[in-house]
Amino acid sequence: MASGFLWPRSYNLGMLFDQITIVGVGLIGGSVGLAARARGAAGRVVGVDRDEATIAKAVALGAIDTGTTDLAEGVANSSLVVVCTPVDRIAEVILAAAPHVRPGTRFTDGGSTKAGIVSALQGKLPANVEYIAAHPLAGSEKAGAEHGRADMFQNRVTVVIISKFGTDWERTVAVGRFWEALGSRVVLMNAEEHDRTVAVTSHLPHAVASAVAGVTPTEWLRLSAGGFRDVTRVAAGDPQLWAAIFEANRDATLSALASFTDRLAEFRKLLEAGDHAGLVQWLTEGKKVRDALGT
Amino acid sequence: MASGFLWPRSYNLGMLFDQITIVGVGLIGGSVGLAARARGAAGRVVGVDRDEATIAKAVALGAIDTGTTDLAEGVANSSLVVVCTPVDRIAEVILAAAPHVRPGTRFTDGGSTKAGIVSALQGKLPANVEYIAAHPLAGSEKAGAEHGRADMFQNRVTVVIISKFGTDWERTVAVGRFWEALGSRVVLMNAEEHDRTVAVTSHLPHAVASAVAGVTPTEWLRLSAGGFRDVTRVAAGDPQLWAAIFEANRDATLSALASFTDRLAEFRKLLEAGDHAGLVQWLTEGKKVRDALGT
Repeated sequence: MASGFLWPRSYNLGMLFDQITIVGVGLIGGSVGLAARARGAAGRVVGVDRDEATIAKAVALGAIDTGTTDLAEGVANSSLVVVCTPVDRIAEVILAAAPHVRPGTRFTDGGSTKAGIVSALQGKLPANVEYIAAHPLAGSEKAGAEHGRADMFQNRVTVVIISKFGTDWERTVAVGRFWEALGSRVVLMNAEEHDRTVAVTSHLPHAVASAVAGVTPTEWLRLSAGGFRDVTRVAAGDPQLWAAIFEANRDATLSALASFTDRLAEFRKLLEAGDHAGLVQWLTEGKKVRDALGT
Repeated sequence: MASGFLWPRSYNLGMLFDQITIVGVGLIGGSVGLAARARGAAGRVVGVDRDEATIAKAVALGAIDTGTTDLAEGVANSSLVVVCTPVDRIAEVILAAAPHVRPGTRFTDGGSTKAGIVSALQGKLPANVEYIAAHPLAGSEKAGAEHGRADMFQNRVTVVIISKFGTDWERTVAVGRFWEALGSRVVLMNAEEHDRTVAVTSHLPHAVASAVAGVTPTEWLRLSAGGFRDVTRVAAGDPQLWAAIFEANRDATLSALASFTDRLAEFRKLLEAGDHAGLVQWLTEGKKVRDALGT
């Protein structure tokens, strides 16, 4: 991850924005609101969602101060707009909101893929409005603001994307400081490298978990223990959200899948051949990587 | 799982055996000892291990009352011998111990595969000595009695194997009651069905977890979150133990692998074709199975 630069941690960040708007107040959007309010990173938090019930729920949970289903109205007076919709809607939301924001407003987002969104917005935003793409590596297989947490981003990495065409330094700092204020550690990276990396560390594991669950007859679940439970946990995630993520990162996911199937084919050959030493070696290679991660 | 029969739960089981011997006092053997002593299921617990330091550790941990490296001596006065060695050593340990036990002694074990062991012992045991195969569905990616727990089997399923040649009812009851006394729920099943089932619910997930870890460059781990952590957790397990498990259940594991790779190939085709509805459907099928398991 040669271009990955770890942002130095800072403290006592104080209020960074007078008002922010969160578009999409589900699990991630709700957690952004809870964290921003708990840490005083924003004076006021406005929520925008297509669903009035979702807004009412987010207000009741304390994730937002107020909310609206009207995107233009919701973003009008904020200096930061955090788009937390499914990845396939982020670019269109930003394009729809951009004409209605104040000059100098920054957009950021919580999307799991980055290159497609950055590319879709390239050259499309008004002058003095900028999109600083981000990906907080946090979440859950559960959906909805009711599962949101003020500490969702605590000690998690948030990747902030450096555009290949050059990103405004001050705006990058402002957006990075915001994610940092929510408790996360900022890593700077370019979009393509981000997408290639999370294809392996996030999208491949999800596909694999779902495939394991998908070949398991439910009546066999009684003979499952912690291993099955852990391996398949993410398969409970929202299929719509995840289909959009896979599609947004299709090429990198297909490439990660190819590496994975090659790796599993090695295992099959070793097992077919009864190569005990080879199996131990193959398992040891995986163990080394997992051990490097810690418990 | 047509032949799986759930053993009715009973309470206040009291002391079932005056003395038991545990052969192999690692994670599972140590937990059997801790649980049997904590619950008073055995008057005295003897440990047998090839390694004197392991025995000393198990005594210090309170997992066994006493121990020896001499298998014949260790099993001489016990009415139940619980073999908790790696699966590839269980049959040979039972064959080596059988001439030294009292008439009426029962053997059981904690091995993850069953058909091979049952078959290896078929017709080889002295009269009045019987092997009642078992598989407590519990464990951890950690090894050693120091990670053992008295509640390791609490509310977990233990499969007790019914021989296709007819298993002695009273001895089956005695061994089933022992695993139940350790806190587990007993399920009766035949060895082949057990092995086919755990190939999918345990061995496949392990191979898949290891393959995901194995294709991940360690420098990319910084961009991993809870999903990767969960999917790959079991990959930290002992490679020697797991190589032996895969080899002991080779055919069923290869068959589970084939189903899995077919399932993942469907995913790849849907993604390549940009079939959003198909991807959602595919993910929903996996989610349904995982949701049936609960959190």
